[in-house]
Amino acid sequence: MLDKKYKLCPELKVMRDPVHGYINVKYKVVWDLINSPEVQRLRRIQQLGGTRLVYHTAEHSRFSHSLGVYEIVRLMIERVSDLQSVLEEQEQVALLCAGLLHDVGHGPFSHSFEAVTKTDHEEFTERIILEDTQVNRILNEADPDLPQLVADIIAHRSERKILSQIISSQMDADRMDYLLRDSYFTGVSYGEFDLYRILRTIRVIDDKIVIKESGIHAVEDYIMARYQMYWQVYLHPVSRSFESILHALFRRMQDLYSEGRFNETGLEVFEPFIKGDTDIPLSAHFKLDESACFAGFVKLMDSEDEILKDLSSRLLNRDLFEYIDFPGNDRKVEIEKIAVEKGYDPRYYILEDFATQILYSPYKEEEESAIWVNSDCGLRELSNASTIVKGFAQGKDKEDHKLFFPKELQ
Amino acid sequence: MLDKKYKLCPELKVMRDPVHGYINVKYKVVWDLINSPEVQRLRRIQQLGGTRLVYHTAEHSRFSHSLGVYEIVRLMIERVSDLQSVLEEQEQVALLCAGLLHDVGHGPFSHSFEAVTKTDHEEFTERIILEDTQVNRILNEADPDLPQLVADIIAHRSERKILSQIISSQMDADRMDYLLRDSYFTGVSYGEFDLYRILRTIRVIDDKIVIKESGIHAVEDYIMARYQMYWQVYLHPVSRSFESILHALFRRMQDLYSEGRFNETGLEVFEPFIKGDTDIPLSAHFKLDESACFAGFVKLMDSEDEILKDLSSRLLNRDLFEYIDFPGNDRKVEIEKIAVEKGYDPRYYILEDFATQILYSPYKEEEESAIWVNSDCGLRELSNASTIVKGFAQGKDKEDHKLFFPKELQ
Amino acid sequence: MLDKKYKLCPELKVMRDPVHGYINVKYKVVWDLINSPEVQRLRRIQQLGGTRLVYHTAEHSRFSHSLGVYEIVRLMIERVSDLQSVLEEQEQVALLCAGLLHDVGHGPFSHSFEAVTKTDHEEFTERIILEDTQVNRILNEADPDLPQLVADIIAHRSERKILSQIISSQMDADRMDYLLRDSYFTGVSYGEFDLYRILRTIRVIDDKIVIKESGIHAVEDYIMARYQMYWQVYLHPVSRSFESILHALFRRMQDLYSEGRFNETGLEVFEPFIKGDTDIPLSAHFKLDESACFAGFVKLMDSEDEILKDLSSRLLNRDLFEYIDFPGNDRKVEIEKIAVEKGYDPRYYILEDFATQILYSPYKEEEESAIWVNSDCGLRELSNASTIVKGFAQGKDKEDHKLFFPKELQ
Amino acid sequence: MLDKKYKLCPELKVMRDPVHGYINVKYKVVWDLINSPEVQRLRRIQQLGGTRLVYHTAEHSRFSHSLGVYEIVRLMIERVSDLQSVLEEQEQVALLCAGLLHDVGHGPFSHSFEAVTKTDHEEFTERIILEDTQVNRILNEADPDLPQLVADIIAHRSERKILSQIISSQMDADRMDYLLRDSYFTGVSYGEFDLYRILRTIRVIDDKIVIKESGIHAVEDYIMARYQMYWQVYLHPVSRSFESILHALFRRMQDLYSEGRFNETGLEVFEPFIKGDTDIPLSAHFKLDESACFAGFVKLMDSEDEILKDLSSRLLNRDLFEYIDFPGNDRKVEIEKIAVEKGYDPRYYILEDFATQILYSPYKEEEESAIWVNSDCGLRELSNASTIVKGFAQGKDKEDHKLFFPKELQ
Repeated sequence: MLDKKYKLCPELKVMRDPVHGYINVKYKVVWDLINSPEVQRLRRIQQLGGTRLVYHTAEHSRFSHSLGVYEIVRLMIERVSDLQSVLEEQEQVALLCAGLLHDVGHGPFSHSFEAVTKTDHEEFTERIILEDTQVNRILNEADPDLPQLVADIIAHRSERKILSQIISSQMDADRMDYLLRDSYFTGVSYGEFDLYRILRTIRVIDDKIVIKESGIHAVEDYIMARYQMYWQVYLHPVSRSFESILHALFRRMQDLYSEGRFNETGLEVFEPFIKGDTDIPLSAHFKLDESACFAGFVKLMDSEDEILKDLSSRLLNRDLFEYIDFPGNDRKVEIEKIAVEKGYDPRYYILEDFATQILYSPYKEEEESAIWVNSDCGLRELSNASTIVKGFAQGKDKEDHKLFFPKELQ
Repeated sequence: MLDKKYKLCPELKVMRDPVHGYINVKYKVVWDLINSPEVQRLRRIQQLGGTRLVYHTAEHSRFSHSLGVYEIVRLMIERVSDLQSVLEEQEQVALLCAGLLHDVGHGPFSHSFEAVTKTDHEEFTERIILEDTQVNRILNEADPDLPQLVADIIAHRSERKILSQIISSQMDADRMDYLLRDSYFTGVSYGEFDLYRILRTIRVIDDKIVIKESGIHAVEDYIMARYQMYWQVYLHPVSRSFESILHALFRRMQDLYSEGRFNETGLEVFEPFIKGDTDIPLSAHFKLDESACFAGFVKLMDSEDEILKDLSSRLLNRDLFEYIDFPGNDRKVEIEKIAVEKGYDPRYYILEDFATQILYSPYKEEEESAIWVNSDCGLRELSNASTIVKGFAQGKDKEDHKLFFPKELQ
Repeated sequence: MLDKKYKLCPELKVMRDPVHGYINVKYKVVWDLINSPEVQRLRRIQQLGGTRLVYHTAEHSRFSHSLGVYEIVRLMIERVSDLQSVLEEQEQVALLCAGLLHDVGHGPFSHSFEAVTKTDHEEFTERIILEDTQVNRILNEADPDLPQLVADIIAHRSERKILSQIISSQMDADRMDYLLRDSYFTGVSYGEFDLYRILRTIRVIDDKIVIKESGIHAVEDYIMARYQMYWQVYLHPVSRSFESILHALFRRMQDLYSEGRFNETGLEVFEPFIKGDTDIPLSAHFKLDESACFAGFVKLMDSEDEILKDLSSRLLNRDLFEYIDFPGNDRKVEIEKIAVEKGYDPRYYILEDFATQILYSPYKEEEESAIWVNSDCGLRELSNASTIVKGFAQGKDKEDHKLFFPKELQ
Repeated sequence: MLDKKYKLCPELKVMRDPVHGYINVKYKVVWDLINSPEVQRLRRIQQLGGTRLVYHTAEHSRFSHSLGVYEIVRLMIERVSDLQSVLEEQEQVALLCAGLLHDVGHGPFSHSFEAVTKTDHEEFTERIILEDTQVNRILNEADPDLPQLVADIIAHRSERKILSQIISSQMDADRMDYLLRDSYFTGVSYGEFDLYRILRTIRVIDDKIVIKESGIHAVEDYIMARYQMYWQVYLHPVSRSFESILHALFRRMQDLYSEGRFNETGLEVFEPFIKGDTDIPLSAHFKLDESACFAGFVKLMDSEDEILKDLSSRLLNRDLFEYIDFPGNDRKVEIEKIAVEKGYDPRYYILEDFATQILYSPYKEEEESAIWVNSDCGLRELSNASTIVKGFAQGKDKEDHKLFFPKELQ
């Protein structure tokens, strides 16, 4: 610990944060990354796409979430003495950077946008870390090994599985921050759990994060929080209605483009994504933030294509589609017919969405993804240690299949 | 109360809000206004322009603030029985609409933007209420008198001064919401005060809102909250640094435009404002939201004008100017010389800002603007009823005069 | 509603309460009951006996809990419009009084105290309401039917099952207040749930309280809160250690008394309870509050009986017994032998405690005790409507069997 | 730091605390002190005597406050790096113990009780630390110098003024804990201020605690919190009504005793205090906690002395005196006459109370008691650095002079 090779900030940098009190930054490399264009761009991408149309105060950005994930990683290192002893400083710094950067490749409205454009934010994240960017230069300057180390942690390629476990597993810094943060900014309390209790009961055994048995109830509460947030917030039908329309809007642009009928001006920023390019330059990715999208939708309200005009107006003015439980394919066909009769193109106006959430999945393909509990009888996977979670694991996955369409069709 | 002429929503609409618990909407006209394009546009304008660069979670919009002001007005009417008796339903509905609409004319980054473009959000607010808009149509449909009534309340032209007092005075629904809301979203506690205590002690005397003596401490706390929020949040030098650069950027565009050298494409949305038009159409105002601005700044990062390129990049990447207490005009001239030597145009790179706040101004030109306390000895203006506030009123106004410039010049 | 026969307070009485904001009292009979000696006595009985030895701030009294239960009943009546329509004013007032009085018969350290003295707080509650007390006089003066109505609601004898359902069932005002209140005063967040959401989704169907399907997640959260509070707070082993010693102390007094060897002076207040009287006068019950107990324990620290002296000192000075998971009867006998060798009387020093909690019991003997959900397919018992709760209902009851003894025996 | 001579607990002890999150105990001497009879006795003395009759949830004890003061001292040492460098471990440990023990000599209902019995909790605190007690033995065993060091810090006799400044000054750990704690437990928000901001801006200059200029607003908020809590909570007239009656009750016992007419049995615990003994043994002090008082008042409800009987009943049943602003001596004499006519002895039934609070006293006799701000121009006393506080310092002290008597006399 004496030969610290990483430069420190002249004095500790602190940023007030309602979820964690403060974000604390000691390392210069972290401070420089925060101020890089690629990370600052996350200020222009909201954390919860369509959710703000249900919970109007859910307007926080991926930027503040990224700081929050960084801070949870930092708290873990600071407070879990086991971690301090098993991780060298280089690993600690790489982990802090991975926490901060894990979402840097996100575009606007990630899930629906990616589905329609066939892009992948994880791929962009990796490229931003490894290719020619400010982020890469900052990492490289601090330590030439850092870019690869950070990318490997995020992509689960690191040899030390514990590093990836902290960033991405069933109970990682990412999920812990977003449950707390989304709870705070929506104003629902369902996502709250006792982070400090969890931090106090984390131990490292067999190079894995494990929870002491005395922390098991805090973990149960975390699992419950996750379940509640999925169904009350993330998969809320109004949010999915917004995202379905967004999906339809982009498909419409793609379809027009492929038919050579996409004539909008001032929307160059969308083009790489609607052309179906497979090799999108990072500069194009950088420019497509949510501001660009909303500015684009405002332009589309003047489009000559009635569908683009209508769908963009619906997104901007919260004139969303109604929804019903999926009524079966026969009934769907009937509704599509009515749509056609009333002048709606069913490809863009009759939209289906299937949401599902696994309550608790006890064991995924990778061991480091599970939650482990340390008790007198040794390590046990969480659902073997908690009656509550066993109930979750055995329960049927919750599913919700819905059909969305304009209310005039109801 | 029996002949309610205003339509109600089929069932009470509620929206979760972390500041007030829920926003409750009973009247159809209010619900329709919320869903109008002009009000939904406020989702794309943040409440606190540059503040998010100090407090990273201050990302909430004028939309949620507008709902909050509406809700405080609603709570006042619901809980202050005096108000229910002195206000007719038409006045109540007009007041609710005024609370919701008081900020509808805001553009992006209001204060610095208006200073440079010589526009005025109050004028736009009035036009949106009275001219040909969705908002106007909705008001008009509910009651043809509403547009004028609402506009008059907001513009302090209403004959019943109490209506304007509730929307805009030393202690109005607007300020009460923004102190609480900005506190919540920045994560500082300084703006908190006891809204429910204030609501419980409001009475109506001489057609004025007054506070019972037993609520005086809650009002003192509110005055203190206002003071603290000004200096810790609204007038924070980092926020003013952002706004100074923004101001310089728009001036640069204006200067280039007036010299015929503004050649940017895809920035039509800025044009009406940099041309110095005096009669800006509402459609242009509608389109200029913060998304448009940020999308514009991203474009300007590729500008051929080095100053536009640099300043827009500074805004986006938080590469703000440093600041010092204003060192006197002589020293300013020296710094400007150094700037020129180093290749910086002082018009856009040496920026002065003077901030001041009156701690408590006991009596403004209009009587309805003051805060009145009702005690055994009759109505007294707040600073005559509270030792604390008297101290504020007699204290020197707090001032802060600063000079901003790139850190290379320090 | 026009012929209100119950007197109102001259003005609404409000008491600040951190859990509910304010306790609001409109009816004079309620205000008078609050100020009766029998209700004020509850200030001298803490809500959570031994828990304060684990959570040092759990020092709140049954008085504030009783106000809280009253307030939840009041909120239900105010906010659930169905309830206002199905309940006459007399029933509403009786319900409010029942909420306030449901715990009035409690003695100190209820559970362990009752176990050893064979007394029953429910019986005392009934007697305080029906016999010659201030409480009875106040009820009677407001309405001669009230005493019996209130007693019947509390004792589940009311013909309208809905009245008892509100005061005592799987999801009643009592439990809802204590989970929130004990959470607040211990400082753990596990007991929090969304009371306002539950209130908003309560309906009355078939003269039963039911929850709309849209409130089901709030109920799931409530069930989880209950589970967590049981194991983290109410059944915490340190708390049970305190209560086991308390139980032993009272047994020691009883044993000495029955052997004619109880010679303490100044402890008359304990006598009716250690003599094994079956018909304890209300005046004796009134005098035995927790202050009397603690004052008695301080006196017992000077007792000539070494066991009374030691056990009382342990209770006062937090010198509690250690605990292990129950090791089987054979091992218990061995430990008792060691105790005897070391001079400890195993009757008072080797103590067994078995704690169990049913996670969720879908259907108890009385239908009004269950939680009902109203969905498109009609009324369903909660565990048929919620996957999560079904898991709870099917899970094994959680049990904890422990042995307590002085740490010198370990 | 290597030769730590103080024993540590086998593992860090943590106690959940709603105000500070957790109380953290590392040193064995601190843990042992917490579990000593003298400190555990503080569980039986509430922090806010009569306040619970206004704010019913203000039922917290001096025990939890003492832990809180200890924790703030601990946080200061942990987070203020200046403090770690200027204080040796012995001083740190002495400071922690002083924080925990500063109130250990308190009796029940301190202020009114001490006024009538002419006792002084500071004197008892010193004796408990220095004479033959568990507390003294524990301190002595850890380090024979500790008892004197701790007593000197508390009594302001320490040569290092900074030590006393932390425990007792205008902005000390004691006040900071009680404002936050009393705020939490009463449920009012007026006492809240930003403790963590203050901790972050504390520096040590000239062996004094000073605040960086950037923390000045947090200190202003603290001063405001103090002012509000005094008038809303500590000096609330209902609380003073309770304390006036308590005072009268004890005076009545003294008067009866001095006339040889005090015949109560079972109240031996009061005797040393009503006899006017000047040298009260610690054992008598130990036994007189609030439980003993309340148990005594319950006994006095059966007294043959009508005044004792009435006053004790009023205290227990919240049948307090009414109050008016002090009407002048002439009017007081008239009221006393009416009292006599109606059979009330004015010595115990017409009670006067004068409350005053200095808003901010810029400079007391001892320099270490003031609040110092460090700015570019060097150290300045707070009222010279803050306009707000200057206003407080120049304002008139707030005063409240009241007369209390039974409502029948009104």
